[in-house]
This record gives sequence, structure tokens and C-alpha cells, in this order.
Amino acid sequence: MKNMAEELFKDFREHSVSEFFRKNAAMLGYTGKIRSLTTVIHEGVTNAIDAAEETGVLPKIVVIIKRVNDEPEHFRVIVEDNASGIPEEFIPNVFGKMLAGTKLHRYMQSRGQQGIGVSGSVMFGQITSGKPATVITSTGNGEIIHADVMIDVDRNEGKITNVEKHKGKWRGTRVEVEVKDVTYMRSRYGPFNYLRMTAIANPHVHVTFVEPDGTITILEPATDKVPERPKSMPLHPWGIMSDDLLILAKHTKSRNVVSFLSAELSRVSKRKAEEVCKLANIPLNKKPSGLTWEEAERIVSAFKQVKLYAPPTSGLRPIGAADIESGMRQILNPEFVHAINRPPKVYRGGLPFIVEAGIAYGGSAGKTTGNEEGEAGMELIRFANRAPLIFDQGGCAITTAMRNIDWRRYGVDPTTAQLTLFVNVVSAYVPYTSAGKQSIADEPEVLDEIRTAIMEVAREVRKFLYRKIKIKERQERAGVFEQYLPIIAQKAARLASLKEPDIKPLLKKVSGVDNAEEES
Amino acid sequence: MKNMAEELFKDFREHSVSEFFRKNAAMLGYTGKIRSLTTVIHEGVTNAIDAAEETGVLPKIVVIIKRVNDEPEHFRVIVEDNASGIPEEFIPNVFGKMLAGTKLHRYMQSRGQQGIGVSGSVMFGQITSGKPATVITSTGNGEIIHADVMIDVDRNEGKITNVEKHKGKWRGTRVEVEVKDVTYMRSRYGPFNYLRMTAIANPHVHVTFVEPDGTITILEPATDKVPERPKSMPLHPWGIMSDDLLILAKHTKSRNVVSFLSAELSRVSKRKAEEVCKLANIPLNKKPSGLTWEEAERIVSAFKQVKLYAPPTSGLRPIGAADIESGMRQILNPEFVHAINRPPKVYRGGLPFIVEAGIAYGGSAGKTTGNEEGEAGMELIRFANRAPLIFDQGGCAITTAMRNIDWRRYGVDPTTAQLTLFVNVVSAYVPYTSAGKQSIADEPEVLDEIRTAIMEVAREVRKFLYRKIKIKERQERAGVFEQYLPIIAQKAARLASLKEPDIKPLLKKVSGVDNAEEES
Repeated sequence: MKNMAEELFKDFREHSVSEFFRKNAAMLGYTGKIRSLTTVIHEGVTNAIDAAEETGVLPKIVVIIKRVNDEPEHFRVIVEDNASGIPEEFIPNVFGKMLAGTKLHRYMQSRGQQGIGVSGSVMFGQITSGKPATVITSTGNGEIIHADVMIDVDRNEGKITNVEKHKGKWRGTRVEVEVKDVTYMRSRYGPFNYLRMTAIANPHVHVTFVEPDGTITILEPATDKVPERPKSMPLHPWGIMSDDLLILAKHTKSRNVVSFLSAELSRVSKRKAEEVCKLANIPLNKKPSGLTWEEAERIVSAFKQVKLYAPPTSGLRPIGAADIESGMRQILNPEFVHAINRPPKVYRGGLPFIVEAGIAYGGSAGKTTGNEEGEAGMELIRFANRAPLIFDQGGCAITTAMRNIDWRRYGVDPTTAQLTLFVNVVSAYVPYTSAGKQSIADEPEVLDEIRTAIMEVAREVRKFLYRKIKIKERQERAGVFEQYLPIIAQKAARLASLKEPDIKPLLKKVSGVDNAEEES
Repeated sequence: MKNMAEELFKDFREHSVSEFFRKNAAMLGYTGKIRSLTTVIHEGVTNAIDAAEETGVLPKIVVIIKRVNDEPEHFRVIVEDNASGIPEEFIPNVFGKMLAGTKLHRYMQSRGQQGIGVSGSVMFGQITSGKPATVITSTGNGEIIHADVMIDVDRNEGKITNVEKHKGKWRGTRVEVEVKDVTYMRSRYGPFNYLRMTAIANPHVHVTFVEPDGTITILEPATDKVPERPKSMPLHPWGIMSDDLLILAKHTKSRNVVSFLSAELSRVSKRKAEEVCKLANIPLNKKPSGLTWEEAERIVSAFKQVKLYAPPTSGLRPIGAADIESGMRQILNPEFVHAINRPPKVYRGGLPFIVEAGIAYGGSAGKTTGNEEGEAGMELIRFANRAPLIFDQGGCAITTAMRNIDWRRYGVDPTTAQLTLFVNVVSAYVPYTSAGKQSIADEPEVLDEIRTAIMEVAREVRKFLYRKIKIKERQERAGVFEQYLPIIAQKAARLASLKEPDIKPLLKKVSGVDNAEEES
């Protein structure tokens, strides 16, 4: 008998992560002509804002989409920021290597968290137009670097060419990607709406947007307060598994298990660490790298028996109710707006998160295109760490939460209501359902919390709508009295042969309208 | 001014693909206690069937889920096949390295296509239980290898330990993975239903399933025909982009562009390749590796100007209408079943695919749990290359297609119908929406074709339901005549003082029921 196995395995090969995502670009959001272009904008803009915030400056972002050679589906996309700039030696890896970055291994809230985004759009440009991306950057040291970057897909490595340097006083980064086979449209899924949503959730960001036809839109910031930089937060013992602990142990600089536990985890003092080691029957001076799986399991379960403070949430940076309201006011110009900011919660035992929600009524609320003339209907706008989620709405926990609410109880008909509902989920580790980062997984605690937040703002809108109805009813009632009381007074006075009384105080009293006196 | 960039970039790091998917296991389907367990089964079973088919034998699969130490959420999952076995030197890479495999780079229809699946479940076992996977395999050479495999997540490398060999006549592979924090349930999303769906779409597969409580279920094959092995199909010129062409050119063994195009692409003879090179103004003896992007673009567009045969579909292996029907009959025991197999189509210009659909009425159709006593309601079962898709139903093109159909036109009320609708999409390159491979992207041509296939089987169910109603009406009518005709005949005969006539032939005629004679 012939050995089948040898024949079958002769084709066995290894592949790079770039090759994988090149073949499966849809998993990164590069699917469809409109979505692909928006994904390029999304990756550029989230990176730009993250970078500016990490640098500690108010983000000033410029986005330009230019048609190339007047071809209908061929564009040059430019995103510029005013952040720290990128040192020359990091350019190939930042733009040309997937799964590389400063954020992937830190437990810190940021818009990007995977180290795929920008290199994904460089790759998308490369596979559709054949052109490298162009990066212009300066760290503010008087020298501006200009370089072309391509990805070597077989090796998952960035290659830079055409490096030029010139003198100049500027700090920031400008990335230019040339893409083909994409379409520009001002639809719900297009770049314009993406930037409009970004502005709502980031009222501190200044955005200049130039569309292919040359239209310039400036989205002015509603605040000039630089948000505090998010802080890296170590994992909390309640949210870790034995495997997490062993991976931390492998990379730690601590020499013994007590200092390791207190250095690498949140809310663990040396004293707590000792208490846990004793409970788990681990020698206090054991080297972390020598921990076995069984010992790690004992430590994880010992942590559940000692008292600890809840996971820290000080590193999380929600937008805040006031800023959500100003963002919504600035962009939607609504009659009513209300936002709330829920207290921090944890999911999977120890991963902290915060849910924020806002609701706006009237103006251009409920009109996705931002056009006040358009048709209304309840609009849901979803965010994760302030970055808009505009695709894969059906599979997202935020959508599930919204759908599970009986809106009629709040006096709202979702099909016609002039309402925009805003939800932002903030976490160092947002549980996305895919590498495209457009939808949040149905983690029970997260889903519950979103639901609670939505109901909280829905109650406010009910009160508002109720008041609106009451005022209308009163005005109508006032109208009736205003019309008939003077006549009744006149006729009655005549019948009784009395002087006609002054009915103004009465009118004011029965109609309940304060300004009845002036109006009558 | 301090140089922010240097400070910010000191944390820049690279990560392995295993590390990425370890942190984002939800992207591979490891989310939720039930789904995670089903995903382990899914990866094992799809690999086992693929392997047996590639070996050219009728797949005989054994799946065992055993409770470990009587703990409620701790299991050992065993999947065994009768395929070619795995040569020792490939064990670490097959089970311990992501993005490695025999399938990723071939354009061939298979259940797996990403080179992540099995190493993903080894990793899931490792991060939840801390235990290596155990692999027992033999290529049928008289030696059985037994090895433990773990993944070195930092390096994306498999490590094997405890290797033992012993003599034995057997060929196949048995993989054992120990998992924690998962739940076993016989629900729609559990392993039992997964295997039931696998059996429907793979009537040639023999499955033995042992549940944690010891219950043994054998899903007998409905056919003993080994399906033809799928064939690798080169890309067709209509479906490629310039970038695809350059990547092929980089890896080809051909010396000049004419032989390169005819060797690496489907439906391209030397003569066609010459014609295209002339149109594109490329020297016929040009080395493929020397092609520029502009030349590649010229070649791609020249291909659109010459006549070519449509993409080959000979490598695709649909189930076939007859086998879908026997699969559905075997498992659902329905009153009526009908399946169709649409002709091959292409999407994105040149990627061939086939859609098959089946519909079953009555029996346990419409009852997800496979229990005939359960409540009914139209059930949709989705497949891609015969592998069941049971999660992420909302975002799948098959679901969209089904929802877009007005079922009342077919006499069906989806909320109560005792119907199971079956759809299988076959392609060398199924456009999945994520690495979890549970949902098909809305590619317009694929969506259209699914819709057409569903409507085709829906029409058959309408005819069946119509006949069913007609028969019922006739039976009712027959009942009326049977009851009253004899009385009328008797009374009329008495009134006319005639002999009572034989009404049986008349009864048969008016009632339209063939067996009225026996029945009356």
C-alpha cells in the first residue's frame, strides 16, 4: 500500500499573517467598495487621534480624499495628525508589519488595540493600486522625513524606499494611501458620516475634511480641554486565568513570586501576595518562571478567597455626560439632549469597562445623513472607546440591547421617532467579535450594562416627550378659554346687568399658561 | 521640548499570530461556554472529514466528550478519523502552529481553508486547562505514534513532548484536547446538533458520538459512495487583480510570461497567453519576476478583451440533490423532501461557486433539537463546503436570502411551519466574514444565487402543500358523499319503487378518491 500521508503532506507550508489577511481582507473590513474606503479612513483617523492623545495635545486631524487621474474608483486618501511623529527606525514596522505596535500588549484604553489597522490599509492600497503608502513625519526635531512604505507580504515586513529628509519646523504624521476599486459616497456607510460620528464622540477633536469634489467641511471642537491620557492598568486577579498568570510570570522582571504578584497585578500589595501564596501553598521566594500550571491554578483560586479592592478604573477615559451632550448639540442641533455616564463595571470577573449613553430629540437627530430635510427614524450610533462602529450592526451587543427594549413604554415609535441614541463602551479590552472591530460581543455583563444605560436615557426622553405633550395640551386648553371666556363674561354681565368683570386673572388661572396675560 | 516620540515608542513590540488569537480567541469562535465546546468539536470534525476525503476513504469519525474528575465544566474532547495519518515531523506544525497547513495556498474546496482551526483548539485547551493536546497517529506503516503537543504562543511554534511509539496495524489520527470553563448541552448550539447537521450534509460519513453521560449515538451513512476528491483549481483571469498576478509571478517556476500565464491560470492556453501579451504590449519572453505593476495591470485588462472559457468548476464537489435528500430523510424522517443543485456561477469576476438547497416537511423537520415532540417553526440549516454553520446566523448571506423571501407566497408561515430549509455553498474560496468561519459575506452574486436556489425548492414545497390540501379536501368531500349518497339512493329507490342502485361506481367518480370503493 502506498503511503498516502507522505503524498498529502508534501504541500505543507507556512504563511505569514500578512498573507493571511491579504487573502482574507474582508475580515479587516475591506469588503465592498464603500466600506473599504471608510475602513481606510477609520484606521487612519483612529490612529491619528490615539497618537495625538498619547502625545497630550488637542487632536487636529486633516482628512483628504482626492480622485486620481479623474478615474471614478481611484483615490488618494490622506490623513494627517499633530501627534508626536514617528522616529525613522519605527516607520517600517508601524506601517508595514502586522501585529506590531505599542498598544497590543498594554492593558490601556485606546481606539486601536490590535496592531493590524494601519498596516492593513497600507496593504489594501498596495493590493488595489500597486502603490506604496507615503509617510511624512517629524518628531519636531527640525527634520521632516518623507518615505514610501510597502509590505513584503511573504515575510510580514515593511520595506521603506525613497527616503528623503528636509529641514522644517513641524510635528506630526501624514499618511497617504492610494486605493482603487472603491467608491466615494455621502451615505450612512461613507467617510462623511464616519467623521460626523467621530466628532460627536470626540468633542475635543478638530477635523478638516476635504471631499473628492473639493468641498471642505470643518468639524469644530466643542471643547478645548485635552482629555487626560489613558493609563495602562495591570490585570486584576479576578479577571485572570492560570494561563494569563503563567505568561506574566514568563515575562516578569521580578525575582520571587510575592514581588511578581504585587508588581504585575492590580490591587495586590506585598502583604496580599504573601497571604495568597500561603493559601496556595507556594514558597514565598519561588522564582516566577518556575511556577507550574497547578501552582498557577492554586494561586488563581486563592485570590478568590482573599479580600481585594475591585479592579481599578482610574485608567479608563469615558467622554463624560457633559461632553457627550455638547458633541450631540454641536452636530445634531437638537431640541432636547440628555447623556449619562454609568459607574465602572467588570466583565469576565475582572475586566473593567464603562458604558455611556446619550439621547437627542429633534433637529437633525434621527437623520443619518446629517441632513435636517431627510426622513427620520430612530438612529443608533455605536462607539467603542470613542471610535464609531458603523458596520456589522446586526451582530453587536449595543444593537441587541436596543432591540430588547420596548420603546413604546417610553412613548417612542422607533420607525418614525426623530431620535438619535448614542452608546459608547469604554474598556482597555473591548470584546470585539472580529478583527474588523465593528461589533461588540454579547458578553452578558456588558449587554446588561448597555441595556441599563439605554433605559436610563430613554426615561429622560419620555419625561421630555411627556412635558412636550402637556405643554401642547395646555396651550390648546388656553386657546379654548381665551376664545370663549370673554364672550361668556360679556353675555353674562349683560344678562345680569352688571359691569363686565376683568377675566384676565381667571384666564391665567384656568389655562395654566403663565403668559396668558400677555397673550390674551 | 522633550522628544515625546522616543518616549512613546520605547514600548514598541512585535507579536506572534498565536499571541494575537490567544488574546482574541472570540474571533476564532471561542466565546461563551457552549459555543467554545462546539467550536472544538467543529474544528476536529471538519479536519477529520477533510483528511479522510483527501485520503480517498469513506470517513469514519468518532467523537467522544468525557467529563474530567466529575467537574461540571471540565471535559476531554476526543476526535478520531480513519484518514492518512500524519508523518511524525509534521505533528508540531499541524497542531501547534497557526497559519500553517496543506490547504491555505491551494485553491481547492475544503472545509478548513485557513490553517488556524486545529491549532486554535489546541490553544484553547492549553489556555483553559493548561494541558497539552494528545495526538495518536499512524500512517499505516505498522507504527503508532503518541505525542503531546503544546503551542509556544510567543513564537507561534508547536512543541512536542512525551513521544512514544509502538507497533500496531491501524491508520488514522486521534486528537484529544482537554478543555475547562465550557458547558455540555443538547441545545441548538451544542455538539449534538452540530453532528446531526454534519450528518445531513455528509451522508457518506459515519459518526459515532459518545456524550458525557455515556449515551452513544451512531449516525449511519445514507450512502457508501466515496465522494470524488476535490481538485485544486488555478485562478481564472477574470477573478484576479494585478496584485494576485504579481504574487503568482514571484513564486512561479515558469521562465517566461507566456508559459507563466498558461501554467498558473485556468483556461489560458499558450496561444491565448501570447494574444494577451501582444495586446498588453509585453515581450513574450519576459521573465515573470520582472513584471511591473503597470504591466500586470495591462495584462489583467487585456484578459478582459480576449475570449476565454468560463472558470472551471470541475474541482468543486457539491453534495448533489439525491444525497441531500437521503441525508435529510435519514435524519429528519420527513413526509416530503426535495433538493436541488444549481449550476456553477462565479463571483468577483472569476471565483466559482455552487449553491445547493433542500427542503423537508414533516417528521422532525422544523425541530432543531431533532426531537419530534418539540415545537415546530421553520428551521434554517446553513453549510459551507458541507460544514455546518451554526453561529453568527444574523450576519450570514444565507439568512439574508431566506429573510428576503415572502414565504406566504409559498403557502408557508415561517413561525409555525414544520419545515427545515437546507443551504450549502460550495467554493474553493468561501467568502467568510471572520476567522471563526460561521457566516458568509453578502457578495451580491452569492446572495442572488442563494435566493434563487431557495425559491426553487420553495416552489416544490408549495406544490406539495397544495396537493396535501387538495387531498384533504377530496377526502372531506368523499366523506360527505359516502355519508349521504347511500341514504339518498335508498330513499329515492323506495319513493320510485325501484331497486336500490349500486352507488359504488358513482361514489368513486364524484369523490375522486381512488380507494373510495374499499373505504365505503
